[in-house]
Amino acid sequence: MTQSAIAGVKALFFDVFGTLVDWRGSIAREAKAVLEPLGHRADWPAFADAWRGEYQPAMEEVRAGRIAFSKLDALHRRNLERVLPRFGIAGLGDDVMAHLNRAWHRLDAWADVAPGLHQLKRKFLLAPVSNGNISLMVDLARRNGFPWDAILGAEIAGDYKPKPRVYLAAAEAFDLKPSACMMVAAHTNDLSHAAACGLVTAHVARPNEHGAGRGEAEPSAPVDMAVASLIDLADRLET
Amino acid sequence: MTQSAIAGVKALFFDVFGTLVDWRGSIAREAKAVLEPLGHRADWPAFADAWRGEYQPAMEEVRAGRIAFSKLDALHRRNLERVLPRFGIAGLGDDVMAHLNRAWHRLDAWADVAPGLHQLKRKFLLAPVSNGNISLMVDLARRNGFPWDAILGAEIAGDYKPKPRVYLAAAEAFDLKPSACMMVAAHTNDLSHAAACGLVTAHVARPNEHGAGRGEAEPSAPVDMAVASLIDLADRLET
Repeated sequence: MTQSAIAGVKALFFDVFGTLVDWRGSIAREAKAVLEPLGHRADWPAFADAWRGEYQPAMEEVRAGRIAFSKLDALHRRNLERVLPRFGIAGLGDDVMAHLNRAWHRLDAWADVAPGLHQLKRKFLLAPVSNGNISLMVDLARRNGFPWDAILGAEIAGDYKPKPRVYLAAAEAFDLKPSACMMVAAHTNDLSHAAACGLVTAHVARPNEHGAGRGEAEPSAPVDMAVASLIDLADRLET
Repeated sequence: MTQSAIAGVKALFFDVFGTLVDWRGSIAREAKAVLEPLGHRADWPAFADAWRGEYQPAMEEVRAGRIAFSKLDALHRRNLERVLPRFGIAGLGDDVMAHLNRAWHRLDAWADVAPGLHQLKRKFLLAPVSNGNISLMVDLARRNGFPWDAILGAEIAGDYKPKPRVYLAAAEAFDLKPSACMMVAAHTNDLSHAAACGLVTAHVARPNEHGAGRGEAEPSAPVDMAVASLIDLADRLET
Protein backbone atom coordinates (compact mmCIF):
# COMPACT_ATOMS: atom_id res chain seq x y z
CA MET A 1 0.00 0.00 0.00
CA THR A 2 1.32 3.43 -0.96
CA GLN A 3 0.19 5.49 2.02
CA SER A 4 1.39 8.88 0.80
CA ALA A 5 -0.37 8.49 -2.56
CA ILE A 6 -3.55 7.36 -0.89
CA ALA A 7 -3.60 10.30 1.54
CA GLY A 8 -4.11 12.75 -1.34
CA VAL A 9 -7.15 11.03 -2.82
CA LYS A 10 -10.34 13.14 -3.03
CA ALA A 11 -12.45 11.14 -5.48
CA LEU A 12 -13.06 7.45 -6.09
CA PHE A 13 -13.83 6.19 -9.61
CA PHE A 14 -15.42 2.79 -10.00
CA ASP A 15 -15.42 0.20 -12.69
CA VAL A 16 -18.94 -1.25 -12.73
CA PHE A 17 -19.37 -4.52 -14.71
CA GLY A 18 -17.88 -7.23 -12.54
CA THR A 19 -16.53 -4.82 -9.93
CA LEU A 20 -19.86 -3.56 -8.58
CA VAL A 21 -22.44 -5.74 -10.29
CA ASP A 22 -22.73 -9.45 -11.06
CA TRP A 23 -23.31 -9.16 -14.81
CA ARG A 24 -23.03 -12.92 -15.40
CA GLY A 25 -25.64 -14.09 -12.91
CA SER A 26 -27.94 -11.17 -13.74
CA ILE A 27 -27.77 -11.57 -17.53
CA ALA A 28 -28.34 -15.32 -17.22
CA ARG A 29 -31.41 -14.64 -15.06
CA GLU A 30 -32.77 -11.93 -17.37
CA ALA A 31 -32.21 -13.92 -20.56
CA LYS A 32 -33.97 -16.89 -19.05
CA ALA A 33 -36.86 -14.72 -17.83
CA VAL A 34 -37.34 -13.14 -21.26
CA LEU A 35 -36.67 -16.12 -23.52
CA GLU A 36 -37.95 -19.24 -21.76
CA PRO A 37 -41.59 -18.06 -21.82
CA LEU A 38 -41.13 -17.76 -25.60
CA GLY A 39 -40.10 -21.42 -25.78
CA HIS A 40 -36.33 -21.01 -25.94
CA ARG A 41 -34.00 -23.15 -23.87
CA ALA A 42 -30.27 -22.58 -23.40
CA ASP A 43 -27.39 -22.78 -20.94
CA TRP A 44 -28.10 -19.25 -19.74
CA PRO A 45 -24.77 -18.62 -17.97
CA ALA A 46 -23.06 -19.70 -21.20
CA PHE A 47 -25.34 -17.29 -23.07
CA ALA A 48 -24.24 -14.50 -20.70
CA ASP A 49 -20.59 -15.42 -21.29
CA ALA A 50 -21.05 -15.41 -25.05
CA TRP A 51 -22.78 -12.01 -25.04
CA ARG A 52 -20.08 -10.57 -22.79
CA GLY A 53 -17.47 -12.19 -25.00
CA GLU A 54 -18.35 -9.77 -27.80
CA TYR A 55 -17.86 -6.77 -25.49
CA GLN A 56 -14.14 -6.06 -25.89
CA PRO A 57 -14.04 -6.69 -29.69
CA ALA A 58 -16.95 -4.25 -30.18
CA MET A 59 -15.31 -1.53 -28.11
CA GLU A 60 -12.02 -2.13 -29.89
CA GLU A 61 -13.71 -1.03 -33.13
CA VAL A 62 -14.38 2.33 -31.46
CA ARG A 63 -11.02 2.58 -29.69
CA ALA A 64 -9.20 1.92 -32.95
CA GLY A 65 -11.25 4.56 -34.74
CA ARG A 66 -12.83 2.10 -37.19
CA ILE A 67 -16.35 3.10 -36.13
CA ALA A 68 -17.61 6.28 -34.48
CA PHE A 69 -18.27 6.29 -30.75
CA SER A 70 -21.67 4.92 -29.93
CA LYS A 71 -23.25 4.15 -26.56
CA LEU A 72 -22.61 0.74 -25.06
CA ASP A 73 -26.34 0.01 -25.38
CA ALA A 74 -25.89 0.13 -29.17
CA LEU A 75 -22.86 -2.17 -29.05
CA HIS A 76 -24.73 -4.57 -26.77
CA ARG A 77 -27.57 -4.69 -29.28
CA ARG A 78 -25.25 -5.47 -32.18
CA ASN A 79 -23.54 -8.13 -30.08
CA LEU A 80 -26.88 -9.65 -29.08
CA GLU A 81 -27.82 -10.03 -32.74
CA ARG A 82 -24.58 -11.90 -33.33
CA VAL A 83 -24.89 -14.19 -30.32
CA LEU A 84 -28.53 -15.29 -30.51
CA PRO A 85 -28.11 -17.47 -33.66
CA ARG A 86 -25.30 -19.42 -31.95
CA PHE A 87 -27.91 -20.52 -29.41
CA GLY A 88 -30.44 -21.32 -32.12
CA ILE A 89 -32.63 -18.36 -31.22
CA ALA A 90 -34.18 -16.31 -34.03
CA GLY A 91 -37.25 -14.32 -34.93
CA LEU A 92 -37.59 -12.26 -31.76
CA GLY A 93 -39.80 -9.20 -32.10
CA ASP A 94 -38.35 -5.73 -31.79
CA ASP A 95 -39.93 -5.11 -28.38
CA VAL A 96 -38.46 -8.37 -27.07
CA MET A 97 -35.05 -7.52 -28.47
CA ALA A 98 -35.15 -4.05 -26.90
CA HIS A 99 -36.26 -5.41 -23.53
CA LEU A 100 -33.63 -8.17 -23.63
CA ASN A 101 -30.92 -5.69 -24.58
CA ARG A 102 -31.85 -3.58 -21.59
CA ALA A 103 -31.07 -6.57 -19.34
CA TRP A 104 -27.77 -4.71 -18.83
CA HIS A 105 -29.82 -1.99 -17.07
CA ARG A 106 -31.17 -4.60 -14.63
CA LEU A 107 -27.97 -6.02 -13.13
CA ASP A 108 -27.72 -6.71 -9.41
CA ALA A 109 -24.87 -5.48 -7.24
CA TRP A 110 -22.63 -7.64 -5.08
CA ALA A 111 -23.87 -7.42 -1.49
CA ASP A 112 -21.03 -5.23 -0.17
CA VAL A 113 -21.41 -2.48 -2.77
CA ALA A 114 -24.28 -0.26 -1.61
CA PRO A 115 -23.22 -0.20 2.08
CA GLY A 116 -19.58 0.29 1.07
CA LEU A 117 -20.40 3.22 -1.23
CA HIS A 118 -22.53 4.91 1.40
CA GLN A 119 -19.67 4.65 3.88
CA LEU A 120 -17.17 5.95 1.32
CA LYS A 121 -19.41 8.89 0.41
CA ARG A 122 -18.77 10.48 3.81
CA LYS A 123 -15.21 11.25 2.77
CA PHE A 124 -14.92 11.05 -1.03
CA LEU A 125 -16.57 12.18 -4.23
CA LEU A 126 -17.88 9.06 -5.98
CA ALA A 127 -18.50 8.37 -9.65
CA PRO A 128 -18.66 5.37 -11.95
CA VAL A 129 -15.97 5.45 -14.63
CA SER A 130 -17.41 2.64 -16.67
CA ASN A 131 -17.80 1.86 -20.34
CA GLY A 132 -21.55 1.75 -19.73
CA ASN A 133 -23.59 4.69 -20.96
CA ILE A 134 -25.19 7.30 -18.72
CA SER A 135 -28.74 5.89 -18.82
CA LEU A 136 -27.43 2.40 -18.03
CA MET A 137 -25.47 3.75 -15.05
CA VAL A 138 -28.52 5.69 -13.84
CA ASP A 139 -30.72 2.61 -13.99
CA LEU A 140 -28.16 0.49 -12.10
CA ALA A 141 -27.85 3.23 -9.47
CA ARG A 142 -31.62 3.42 -8.98
CA ARG A 143 -31.93 -0.37 -8.80
CA ASN A 144 -29.06 -0.91 -6.38
CA GLY A 145 -28.90 2.31 -4.36
CA PHE A 146 -25.55 3.63 -5.62
CA PRO A 147 -25.12 7.21 -4.28
CA TRP A 148 -23.13 8.76 -7.14
CA ASP A 149 -22.11 12.41 -7.18
CA ALA A 150 -22.00 12.34 -10.99
CA ILE A 151 -22.01 9.81 -13.83
CA LEU A 152 -18.63 9.93 -15.57
CA GLY A 153 -16.98 7.40 -17.91
CA ALA A 154 -17.05 6.50 -21.59
CA GLU A 155 -20.07 8.54 -22.71
CA ILE A 156 -18.57 11.73 -21.22
CA ALA A 157 -15.19 11.01 -22.79
CA GLY A 158 -16.45 9.83 -26.18
CA ASP A 159 -14.16 6.79 -26.08
CA TYR A 160 -13.83 3.51 -24.22
CA LYS A 161 -11.52 2.34 -21.42
CA PRO A 162 -8.72 1.65 -21.25
CA LYS A 163 -8.02 4.65 -23.50
CA PRO A 164 -6.37 7.38 -21.37
CA ARG A 165 -8.99 9.96 -22.35
CA VAL A 166 -11.63 8.19 -20.25
CA TYR A 167 -9.65 8.34 -16.99
CA LEU A 168 -8.40 11.87 -17.66
CA ALA A 169 -11.83 13.25 -18.61
CA ALA A 170 -13.20 11.95 -15.32
CA ALA A 171 -10.50 13.69 -13.28
CA GLU A 172 -11.02 16.91 -15.25
CA ALA A 173 -14.77 16.83 -14.66
CA PHE A 174 -14.09 16.96 -10.91
CA ASP A 175 -11.33 19.62 -11.31
CA LEU A 176 -8.83 17.15 -9.86
CA LYS A 177 -5.36 16.03 -10.83
CA PRO A 178 -5.23 12.32 -11.70
CA SER A 179 -3.17 11.76 -8.54
CA ALA A 180 -6.15 12.93 -6.45
CA CYS A 181 -8.35 10.22 -8.00
CA MET A 182 -8.41 6.52 -7.17
CA MET A 183 -9.60 3.99 -9.74
CA VAL A 184 -11.31 1.02 -8.08
CA ALA A 185 -11.71 -2.15 -10.16
CA ALA A 186 -11.68 -5.92 -10.06
CA HIS A 187 -9.57 -6.01 -13.24
CA THR A 188 -5.81 -5.51 -13.18
CA ASN A 189 -5.79 -4.33 -16.80
CA ASP A 190 -8.12 -1.41 -16.03
CA LEU A 191 -6.01 -0.43 -13.03
CA SER A 192 -2.71 -0.60 -14.91
CA HIS A 193 -4.03 1.79 -17.56
CA ALA A 194 -5.40 4.12 -14.88
CA ALA A 195 -2.03 4.07 -13.11
CA ALA A 196 -0.31 4.97 -16.38
CA CYS A 197 -2.51 8.10 -16.43
CA GLY A 198 -1.39 8.99 -12.90
CA LEU A 199 -4.38 7.72 -10.91
CA VAL A 200 -4.06 5.88 -7.60
CA THR A 201 -5.39 2.31 -7.83
CA ALA A 202 -7.33 -0.13 -5.67
CA HIS A 203 -8.07 -3.72 -6.66
CA VAL A 204 -11.25 -5.36 -5.37
CA ALA A 205 -11.30 -9.16 -5.28
CA ARG A 206 -14.18 -10.64 -7.32
CA PRO A 207 -13.07 -14.26 -7.51
CA ASN A 208 -16.41 -15.47 -8.89
CA GLU A 209 -17.06 -12.85 -11.59
CA HIS A 210 -17.03 -15.37 -14.45
CA GLY A 211 -18.45 -18.25 -12.37
CA ALA A 212 -17.20 -20.05 -9.28
CA GLY A 213 -13.46 -19.53 -8.91
CA ARG A 214 -13.21 -17.69 -12.25
CA GLY A 215 -12.36 -14.10 -11.46
CA GLU A 216 -9.51 -12.01 -10.08
CA ALA A 217 -8.98 -12.94 -6.44
CA GLU A 218 -5.95 -10.69 -6.42
CA PRO A 219 -4.20 -8.26 -8.78
CA SER A 220 -1.65 -9.62 -11.24
CA ALA A 221 0.38 -6.39 -11.35
CA PRO A 222 1.28 -3.76 -8.73
CA VAL A 223 -1.56 -1.60 -7.36
CA ASP A 224 -1.65 0.90 -4.50
CA MET A 225 -4.14 -1.11 -2.49
CA ALA A 226 -5.88 -4.50 -2.73
CA VAL A 227 -9.13 -5.09 -0.83
CA ALA A 228 -11.63 -7.88 -0.35
CA SER A 229 -14.77 -5.73 -0.73
CA LEU A 230 -15.98 -2.13 -0.79
CA ILE A 231 -16.57 -2.33 2.96
CA ASP A 232 -12.94 -3.37 3.38
CA LEU A 233 -11.98 -0.41 1.16
CA ALA A 234 -14.07 1.97 3.26
CA ASP A 235 -12.54 0.69 6.47
CA ARG A 236 -8.99 0.93 5.10
CA LEU A 237 -9.61 4.47 3.84
CA GLU A 238 -10.81 5.38 7.34
CA THR A 239 -14.23 6.65 6.41
CA MET B 1 -51.68 23.33 -18.17
CA THR B 2 -51.18 20.81 -20.96
CA GLN B 3 -52.23 17.61 -19.22
CA SER B 4 -51.56 15.19 -22.06
CA ALA B 5 -48.01 16.50 -22.61
CA ILE B 6 -47.30 16.33 -18.89
CA ALA B 7 -48.52 12.73 -18.56
CA GLY B 8 -45.66 11.50 -20.77
CA VAL B 9 -42.86 13.10 -18.77
CA LYS B 10 -40.22 10.70 -17.38
CA ALA B 11 -37.38 13.08 -16.50
CA LEU B 12 -37.17 16.56 -15.03
CA PHE B 13 -34.33 18.89 -16.01
CA PHE B 14 -33.58 21.87 -13.81
CA ASP B 15 -32.07 25.23 -14.39
CA VAL B 16 -29.95 25.96 -11.31
CA PHE B 17 -28.78 29.60 -10.92
CA GLY B 18 -31.82 31.52 -9.71
CA THR B 19 -34.20 28.59 -10.11
CA LEU B 20 -32.73 26.34 -7.39
CA VAL B 21 -30.15 28.54 -5.67
CA ASP B 22 -30.05 32.15 -4.52
CA TRP B 23 -26.90 33.20 -6.37
CA ARG B 24 -27.32 36.89 -5.50
CA GLY B 25 -27.57 36.57 -1.73
CA SER B 26 -24.93 33.83 -1.63
CA ILE B 27 -22.38 35.66 -3.79
CA ALA B 28 -22.89 38.86 -1.79
CA ARG B 29 -22.28 36.91 1.44
CA GLU B 30 -19.23 35.07 0.07
CA ALA B 31 -17.64 38.18 -1.44
CA LYS B 32 -18.08 40.02 1.84
CA ALA B 33 -16.64 37.09 3.82
CA VAL B 34 -13.58 36.85 1.58
CA LEU B 35 -12.88 40.54 0.93
CA GLU B 36 -13.86 42.50 4.04
CA PRO B 37 -11.18 40.82 6.21
CA LEU B 38 -8.70 42.06 3.58
CA GLY B 39 -9.88 45.64 4.11
CA HIS B 40 -12.21 45.96 1.12
CA ARG B 41 -15.65 47.52 1.41
CA ALA B 42 -18.38 47.46 -1.24
CA ASP B 43 -22.12 47.22 -1.82
CA TRP B 44 -21.91 43.42 -1.95
CA PRO B 45 -25.29 42.75 -3.58
CA ALA B 46 -24.28 45.26 -6.26
CA PHE B 47 -20.99 43.37 -6.60
CA ALA B 48 -22.95 40.13 -7.09
CA ASP B 49 -25.12 41.82 -9.72
CA ALA B 50 -22.07 43.15 -11.55
CA TRP B 51 -20.33 39.75 -11.58
CA ARG B 52 -23.51 38.06 -12.77
CA GLY B 53 -23.94 40.82 -15.34
CA GLU B 54 -20.90 39.52 -17.21
CA TYR B 55 -22.38 36.00 -17.38
CA GLN B 56 -24.43 36.15 -20.56
CA PRO B 57 -21.85 38.15 -22.59
CA ALA B 58 -19.12 35.64 -21.68
CA MET B 59 -21.26 32.65 -22.70
CA GLU B 60 -22.24 34.43 -25.89
CA GLU B 61 -18.58 34.35 -26.94
CA VAL B 62 -18.77 30.56 -26.75
CA ARG B 63 -22.23 30.24 -28.28
CA ALA B 64 -21.22 32.38 -31.22
CA GLY B 65 -18.08 30.30 -31.75
CA ARG B 66 -15.69 33.20 -31.09
CA ILE B 67 -13.93 31.28 -28.29
CA ALA B 68 -13.74 27.54 -27.62
CA PHE B 69 -16.00 26.00 -25.02
CA SER B 70 -14.59 26.37 -21.55
CA LYS B 71 -16.11 25.53 -18.19
CA LEU B 72 -18.22 28.17 -16.51
CA ASP B 73 -15.62 28.32 -13.70
CA ALA B 74 -13.16 29.70 -16.25
CA LEU B 75 -15.67 32.27 -17.54
CA HIS B 76 -16.50 33.29 -13.96
CA ARG B 77 -12.79 33.86 -13.30
CA ARG B 78 -12.38 36.06 -16.35
CA ASN B 79 -15.51 37.98 -15.40
CA LEU B 80 -14.26 38.43 -11.81
CA GLU B 81 -11.05 39.98 -13.09
CA ARG B 82 -13.12 42.46 -15.10
CA VAL B 83 -15.49 43.37 -12.27
CA LEU B 84 -13.11 43.81 -9.32
CA PRO B 85 -11.50 47.05 -10.62
CA ARG B 86 -14.94 48.66 -10.93
CA PHE B 87 -15.22 48.29 -7.17
CA GLY B 88 -11.72 49.59 -6.59
CA ILE B 89 -10.39 46.18 -5.60
CA ALA B 90 -6.97 45.11 -6.88
CA GLY B 91 -3.92 43.10 -5.91
CA LEU B 92 -5.64 39.97 -4.62
CA GLY B 93 -3.38 36.93 -4.37
CA ASP B 94 -3.98 33.91 -6.54
CA ASP B 95 -5.28 31.79 -3.66
CA VAL B 96 -7.78 34.50 -2.73
CA MET B 97 -8.90 34.84 -6.34
CA ALA B 98 -9.36 31.08 -6.66
CA HIS B 99 -11.31 30.85 -3.41
CA LEU B 100 -13.46 33.85 -4.33
CA ASN B 101 -14.16 32.42 -7.80
CA ARG B 102 -15.35 29.20 -6.19
CA ALA B 103 -18.00 31.21 -4.32
CA TRP B 104 -20.25 29.89 -7.11
CA HIS B 105 -19.69 26.41 -5.65
CA ARG B 106 -21.00 27.64 -2.27
CA LEU B 107 -24.46 28.91 -3.20
CA ASP B 108 -27.45 28.18 -0.97
CA ALA B 109 -30.72 26.73 -2.26
CA TRP B 110 -34.13 28.28 -1.84
CA ALA B 111 -35.88 26.51 1.06
CA ASP B 112 -38.35 24.51 -1.05
CA VAL B 113 -35.75 22.91 -3.32
CA ALA B 114 -34.28 19.96 -1.41
CA PRO B 115 -37.64 18.71 -0.06
CA GLY B 116 -39.26 19.26 -3.46
CA LEU B 117 -36.55 17.33 -5.30
CA HIS B 118 -36.73 14.41 -2.86
CA GLN B 119 -40.49 14.22 -3.41
CA LEU B 120 -40.07 14.43 -7.20
CA LYS B 121 -37.39 11.72 -7.21
CA ARG B 122 -40.00 9.10 -6.31
CA LYS B 123 -41.51 9.41 -9.76
CA PHE B 124 -38.98 11.07 -12.11
CA LEU B 125 -35.36 10.96 -13.17
CA LEU B 126 -33.77 14.22 -12.07
CA ALA B 127 -30.81 16.13 -13.48
CA PRO B 128 -29.55 19.69 -13.55
CA VAL B 129 -29.40 21.09 -17.08
CA SER B 130 -27.44 24.17 -16.16
CA ASN B 131 -24.65 26.20 -17.69
CA GLY B 132 -22.60 25.43 -14.58
CA ASN B 133 -19.83 22.85 -14.91
CA ILE B 134 -19.96 19.36 -13.44
CA SER B 135 -17.77 20.06 -10.39
CA LEU B 136 -19.82 23.16 -9.58
CA MET B 137 -23.05 21.16 -9.79
CA VAL B 138 -21.56 18.40 -7.61
CA ASP B 139 -20.53 20.89 -4.93
CA LEU B 140 -23.96 22.55 -4.91
CA ALA B 141 -25.58 19.12 -4.65
CA ARG B 142 -23.40 18.12 -1.70
CA ARG B 143 -23.98 21.44 0.05
CA ASN B 144 -27.74 21.53 -0.44
CA GLY B 145 -28.75 17.86 -0.60
CA PHE B 146 -29.86 17.72 -4.24
CA PRO B 147 -30.49 14.03 -5.13
CA TRP B 148 -29.47 14.04 -8.80
CA ASP B 149 -29.49 10.91 -10.94
CA ALA B 150 -26.82 12.41 -13.19
CA ILE B 151 -25.20 15.78 -13.88
CA LEU B 152 -26.17 16.90 -17.37
CA GLY B 153 -25.99 20.37 -18.97
CA ALA B 154 -23.43 22.58 -20.69
CA GLU B 155 -20.26 20.61 -19.92
CA ILE B 156 -21.78 17.43 -21.35
CA ALA B 157 -23.02 19.25 -24.44
CA GLY B 158 -19.93 21.38 -25.04
CA ASP B 159 -22.05 24.50 -25.50
CA TYR B 160 -24.19 26.85 -23.43
CA LYS B 161 -27.95 27.23 -23.06
CA PRO B 162 -30.07 28.31 -24.73
CA LYS B 163 -28.38 26.54 -27.66
CA PRO B 164 -30.55 23.54 -28.67
CA ARG B 165 -27.65 21.09 -28.27
CA VAL B 166 -27.72 21.46 -24.49
CA TYR B 167 -31.39 20.44 -24.12
CA LEU B 168 -31.11 17.70 -26.74
CA ALA B 169 -27.90 16.20 -25.31
CA ALA B 170 -29.60 15.92 -21.93
CA ALA B 171 -32.57 14.04 -23.37
CA GLU B 172 -30.24 11.74 -25.34
CA ALA B 173 -28.19 10.94 -22.24
CA PHE B 174 -31.35 9.55 -20.63
CA ASP B 175 -32.44 7.76 -23.85
CA LEU B 176 -35.57 9.88 -23.92
CA LYS B 177 -37.37 11.86 -26.57
CA PRO B 178 -37.47 15.59 -25.78
CA SER B 179 -41.23 15.27 -25.25
CA ALA B 180 -40.57 12.91 -22.31
CA CYS B 181 -38.44 15.57 -20.59
CA MET B 182 -39.65 18.62 -18.67
CA MET B 183 -37.43 21.69 -18.34
CA VAL B 184 -38.01 23.48 -15.03
CA ALA B 185 -36.77 27.06 -14.73
CA ALA B 186 -37.53 30.47 -13.29
CA HIS B 187 -36.65 32.11 -16.61
CA THR B 188 -39.11 32.28 -19.50
CA ASN B 189 -36.29 32.57 -22.03
CA ASP B 190 -34.78 29.22 -20.99
CA LEU B 191 -38.21 27.58 -21.17
CA SER B 192 -39.06 29.02 -24.58
CA HIS B 193 -35.85 27.60 -26.05
CA ALA B 194 -36.47 24.23 -24.38
CA ALA B 195 -40.00 24.20 -25.80
CA ALA B 196 -38.63 24.91 -29.27
CA CYS B 197 -36.59 21.69 -28.88
CA GLY B 198 -39.73 19.75 -27.98
CA LEU B 199 -39.42 19.65 -24.20
CA VAL B 200 -42.34 20.12 -21.84
CA THR B 201 -41.91 23.23 -19.66
CA ALA B 202 -42.60 24.29 -16.08
CA HIS B 203 -42.02 27.80 -14.76
CA VAL B 204 -41.13 28.27 -11.09
CA ALA B 205 -41.82 31.68 -9.58
CA ARG B 206 -38.68 33.30 -8.11
CA PRO B 207 -39.90 36.86 -7.67
CA ASN B 208 -36.88 37.90 -5.58
CA GLU B 209 -34.03 36.41 -7.64
CA HIS B 210 -32.43 39.79 -8.37
CA GLY B 211 -33.49 41.38 -5.08
CA ALA B 212 -36.88 42.10 -3.52
CA GLY B 213 -39.53 42.13 -6.23
CA ARG B 214 -36.97 41.74 -9.01
CA GLY B 215 -37.48 38.32 -10.52
CA GLU B 216 -40.02 36.40 -12.58
CA ALA B 217 -43.17 35.98 -10.52
CA GLU B 218 -44.81 34.44 -13.57
CA PRO B 219 -43.84 33.42 -17.10
CA SER B 220 -43.99 36.02 -19.85
CA ALA B 221 -44.70 33.46 -22.61
CA PRO B 222 -46.75 30.25 -22.75
CA VAL B 223 -45.49 27.28 -20.69
CA ASP B 224 -47.06 23.91 -19.92
CA MET B 225 -47.22 24.56 -16.19
CA ALA B 226 -46.47 27.43 -13.80
CA VAL B 227 -45.80 26.68 -10.13
CA ALA B 228 -44.96 28.61 -6.97
CA SER B 229 -42.21 26.26 -5.74
CA LEU B 230 -40.75 22.79 -6.25
CA ILE B 231 -43.08 21.47 -3.57
CA ASP B 232 -45.98 22.88 -5.56
CA LEU B 233 -44.51 21.18 -8.66
CA ALA B 234 -44.22 17.86 -6.83
CA ASP B 235 -47.81 18.10 -5.61
CA ARG B 236 -49.12 18.99 -9.05
CA LEU B 237 -47.20 16.13 -10.67
CA GLU B 238 -48.76 13.77 -8.11
CA THR B 239 -45.55 12.37 -6.65
